[in-house]
Amino acid sequence: MSVTSAVGRPSSSDDASGAPAAVPPGSGAAPSSTRPPAAEVAVLEVCRRAREASRALATALPAAKDAGLHAIADALVAATDRIVAANAEDIERGQASGMSASLQDRLRLDARRVAAIADAVRDVAALPDPVGEVVRGSTRPNGLRLRQVRVPLGVVGMVYEARPNVTVDAAVLALKSGNAAVLRGGSAAMSSNVAIVDVVRGALAASGLPADAVASIDEWGREGAVHLMRARGLVDVLVPRGGQDLIRTVVESSTVPVIETGWGNVHVYVDAAADLDQALAIAVNAKVQRPSVCNAAETLLVHREVAAAFLPRVLRELAGAGVALHVDDRVREAVAGAGIATTPATDHDWATEYVGLELAVGVVDSLDDAVAHIRRWSSGHTEAICTLDVRAADRFVAEVDSAVVVVNASTRWTDGAEFGLGAEVGISTQKLHARGPMGLAELTSTKWVVTGDGQLRG
Amino acid sequence: MSVTSAVGRPSSSDDASGAPAAVPPGSGAAPSSTRPPAAEVAVLEVCRRAREASRALATALPAAKDAGLHAIADALVAATDRIVAANAEDIERGQASGMSASLQDRLRLDARRVAAIADAVRDVAALPDPVGEVVRGSTRPNGLRLRQVRVPLGVVGMVYEARPNVTVDAAVLALKSGNAAVLRGGSAAMSSNVAIVDVVRGALAASGLPADAVASIDEWGREGAVHLMRARGLVDVLVPRGGQDLIRTVVESSTVPVIETGWGNVHVYVDAAADLDQALAIAVNAKVQRPSVCNAAETLLVHREVAAAFLPRVLRELAGAGVALHVDDRVREAVAGAGIATTPATDHDWATEYVGLELAVGVVDSLDDAVAHIRRWSSGHTEAICTLDVRAADRFVAEVDSAVVVVNASTRWTDGAEFGLGAEVGISTQKLHARGPMGLAELTSTKWVVTGDGQLRG
Repeated sequence: MSVTSAVGRPSSSDDASGAPAAVPPGSGAAPSSTRPPAAEVAVLEVCRRAREASRALATALPAAKDAGLHAIADALVAATDRIVAANAEDIERGQASGMSASLQDRLRLDARRVAAIADAVRDVAALPDPVGEVVRGSTRPNGLRLRQVRVPLGVVGMVYEARPNVTVDAAVLALKSGNAAVLRGGSAAMSSNVAIVDVVRGALAASGLPADAVASIDEWGREGAVHLMRARGLVDVLVPRGGQDLIRTVVESSTVPVIETGWGNVHVYVDAAADLDQALAIAVNAKVQRPSVCNAAETLLVHREVAAAFLPRVLRELAGAGVALHVDDRVREAVAGAGIATTPATDHDWATEYVGLELAVGVVDSLDDAVAHIRRWSSGHTEAICTLDVRAADRFVAEVDSAVVVVNASTRWTDGAEFGLGAEVGISTQKLHARGPMGLAELTSTKWVVTGDGQLRG
Repeated sequence: MSVTSAVGRPSSSDDASGAPAAVPPGSGAAPSSTRPPAAEVAVLEVCRRAREASRALATALPAAKDAGLHAIADALVAATDRIVAANAEDIERGQASGMSASLQDRLRLDARRVAAIADAVRDVAALPDPVGEVVRGSTRPNGLRLRQVRVPLGVVGMVYEARPNVTVDAAVLALKSGNAAVLRGGSAAMSSNVAIVDVVRGALAASGLPADAVASIDEWGREGAVHLMRARGLVDVLVPRGGQDLIRTVVESSTVPVIETGWGNVHVYVDAAADLDQALAIAVNAKVQRPSVCNAAETLLVHREVAAAFLPRVLRELAGAGVALHVDDRVREAVAGAGIATTPATDHDWATEYVGLELAVGVVDSLDDAVAHIRRWSSGHTEAICTLDVRAADRFVAEVDSAVVVVNASTRWTDGAEFGLGAEVGISTQKLHARGPMGLAELTSTKWVVTGDGQLRG
């Protein structure tokens, strides 16, 4: 029986903890006549074990989970040499295959970075436990008592790219919120991830929590990832973390519900009524301060009334910081003779998340045109307006349909820690379940508990 | 360009409100060499118009939306004759094709029911508007002010079966929460739905709201439904309301995010420590009081220690109410000689939502076995325990992973109105976004608004 054939939970695969007396054990679990491929069997078995482990985690005491997290932090530090050595293999393979310097930087681990990862685990342990929080509740006129309580989602699948710190991050955020995690990291970080997951599982077992609560399916490669994405009923949610292509693949292939995170085609709009000095600082900060992350700006839109005054200044500063500029005709006119190198912007530029030192720049006739451009090209992550006009700010906030809308500040602030959410699972760019920076609460669901003394519906 | 090729929003189809100055109008919108079928073109055009209408609704004043809802209620009453006549065509077709009496009852409209539907619309108008609610907010140490604000989802697709009141219900719940609705009703109610949607659209236009905010795609049949389910980027969420097969089809076919609602394989477990009189009343109420709805019980599990005392009494009463009983061997033994007609329960019975006067009944050895049975077979809707043992109640609540867990009351209480949520969009049986009875807030997303005065990330 395929797990994807069942809505809700699968009937044959979800009873590993013991068949009930009323039902013949093993019924419905007969092997099908065509055997599934080995990778499918293996990945579904990993998911099944994670599901079983998730039941223990769901009712684990907060103190037990936190002890497990501290055990993981200690074990990572103790295994620093092993992890760094494994990471060196990944880096070496990356260099041999021509990996870019910025990707190598994201991939690289040294003792300092391992220690920082362990510290981040301890920070997560110190956060309030979201499980058990009573979200709302009431007593109904008939005496029924209702409470809506946070509960773990169950099994969280994470699909991500070449940053081995995400392996730890994803695992501990899932554990803290009472979930099991099935991890699929990028092949570029495979040696690092194998070592890290092994250390994490050992620490879990040593602290009395089920080792199967954290598992990697990296060894089954892309085929394994496909089976993870189809494990509806075993895996409760998939969280892809990475670039646009990764997210699109997961969204289009998954039958498991997906929370889209991460890719940001982020806009800064400089209004006619902007404080141009402030706008310049915001635009440069949004693009240059850390260009490799999803909340960095990718397109700058400037109102035509301030184009001549603003564009030569801001583009000179951006070019000086090494930013390649893709500009429309009116931008090129506005900076003509200023000695700033530009190339013509195409639709590709408006659509692209560069994740690097490149920027698309355009002139718009009005706030309406800025909003229309953003609606057309944005990924719905973060957009900023620079303006001192209250009505322009209000309209931008109301009409731009993105997870985060910023007035007179850098787009770089879109971040779980900066928002005070404690730890960040990712930045959701979708509208269901979670939108914007996701904290631990976004890795939970809720359950209604209804308590009565014989109330009947009449 | 297919709308399903874009993650987030489509680039070519989302700018119907005017191309921005910086981008050549129509770019990316060139017709493909192979023309899509007519139904696809038509359904996507309906969705596109709904998307445009949703922008007006998203920023409409609460008073304007409520005036629109009152206009709809008045128009429905004024069009009673037309609606009842259209409904009579549906009933006639249903009778000719052998539709069951209970389905005919769900389908039938008369003047009294139309008036009740209109009253329900006025009730929705009277509810608090969820849009604009500030869910949380703070001022960060650097002076950035954050607020997380409820915003509409955008376009809500509803796929449902033969109950024409759902057409109105779905439309007005979407409108009240600032969303446009694209409706796909069952073919059995097609004449009713066509008449109702026409009346609703007329009322919207007359009250100054966009008529395209409510649209039906019924005329394109099943093919139209498929295109609705693939309209990712134009439709923000699909809410199927109906039986298991409908929901499975939508879940498996959609690239649009889905909120599963409705089907309930609901369990009542009578513990060894139950008050048996109360348990009897609860079991009978849960099964018999309204067997055609999703919160009615479908399986009764009884602890072996009370099987002999409880089962003959409860099954006699259930049989007397006309309930067909599918029982396991130990139940048959417990009622042997009591003159109660039973048939053997199979796995099919444990898995089935009868939505009628049938019940599966089993004996379990322990609370553990009851929980294991429920984990295996439940749809995750509602499960109840009857017990006076605090530890049994606590364990059942903690270990049963369903949207609603009830202690010592009927499962029939799982309902948005009974929970005090005002109006019910459906009962979500999934874990993401909404779980259990969904109110208006569950048809919204949130947006973070960040306001500063030049804050940069350093």
